[in-house]
Amino acid sequence: MPIAHIHMMEGRTDEQKAAVIEKVTDALCEAVDAPRQNVRVLIQEVPNTQFGIGGKTAKSLGR
Amino acid sequence: MPIAHIHMMEGRTDEQKAAVIEKVTDALCEAVDAPRQNVRVLIQEVPNTQFGIGGKTAKSLGR
Amino acid sequence: MPIAHIHMMEGRTDEQKAAVIEKVTDALCEAVDAPRQNVRVLIQEVPNTQFGIGGKTAKSLGR
Amino acid sequence: MPIAHIHMMEGRTDEQKAAVIEKVTDALCEAVDAPRQNVRVLIQEVPNTQFGIGGKTAKSLGR
Amino acid sequence: MPIAHIHMMEGRTDEQKAAVIEKVTDALCEAVDAPRQNVRVLIQEVPNTQFGIGGKTAKSLGR
Amino acid sequence: MPIAHIHMMEGRTDEQKAAVIEKVTDALCEAVDAPRQNVRVLIQEVPNTQFGIGGKTAKSLGR
Repeated sequence: MPIAHIHMMEGRTDEQKAAVIEKVTDALCEAVDAPRQNVRVLIQEVPNTQFGIGGKTAKSLGR
Repeated sequence: MPIAHIHMMEGRTDEQKAAVIEKVTDALCEAVDAPRQNVRVLIQEVPNTQFGIGGKTAKSLGR
Repeated sequence: MPIAHIHMMEGRTDEQKAAVIEKVTDALCEAVDAPRQNVRVLIQEVPNTQFGIGGKTAKSLGR
Repeated sequence: MPIAHIHMMEGRTDEQKAAVIEKVTDALCEAVDAPRQNVRVLIQEVPNTQFGIGGKTAKSLGR
Repeated sequence: MPIAHIHMMEGRTDEQKAAVIEKVTDALCEAVDAPRQNVRVLIQEVPNTQFGIGGKTAKSLGR
Repeated sequence: MPIAHIHMMEGRTDEQKAAVIEKVTDALCEAVDAPRQNVRVLIQEVPNTQFGIGGKTAKSLGR
């Protein structure tokens, strides 16, 4: 622990995903003094047809 | 908030997914008077080989 | 399936939670023609000190 | 209930996934005496570019 | 990995929770040959007012 | 989006939770250039009797 589960829109590069993993791990180590080796980060990509804001799909909102 | 995370079997159309987003948002606004703009809905599709009921895969159960 | 996991702010009544379960189930049955008996809804309450919007806690935003 | 949500690295066979569903269901029935028919298992595969251990991607760690 | 997230009804003993952790870990090691030390299990208890089956609360169904 | 769901051991202060929200939001804005106002962070605390590492409870491992 901590385990961070990140949902984000589809389409990021592997470099951006690696940056999410590194920076979120940094953030958790700083914020709660977690031992770095214990931190897990899981990224889940979501298509814009499968994410809704205020009842509308992200796709219909041009995201 | 609220944030609704919906897991459902793979294979629905984009129209059905848009309907899930719209109707689940309606349901949450009605049930807890949530401001519509704050409601998020996330759909996750699951293959029938990766969902189990009573220890059997949905695929083996013909779903 | 579908399985709906709803995260919402702490403090709703049991009646409101029952309404979330009933109305979200209705929404999923209508949207994807799911058999009612197969739909599961799970509600998770989140304290306002443990939910963040734009980097600020919901508590500090007066929610 | 119980509902088990299993995140694991991409690349397992359908047979292995069926074994996860069967054995995790067995484990939950034994541990908490859950009626077998009520147990649900959901498997989510994660690419090695989207899982981080200690701030590094599983891919960079050769997993 | 694997990471198992188990949702179950409130009210189990610490011994039952320890049994869930042990037996689910055994199941995952057997099913996908995962190194035991890499397996994480997270248990989340859900009150019977916050779990719905077919649109009804578990409480109203006498669970 | 992104939505970050952070599971961590019970017992942190409100200040530490606010720091998790702020720093994880910073990390996601930097890593994928997400608009700050769109980022949501959800913290879930887990008792040491409900988290397992290698089949043992965190409690039995002295965590």
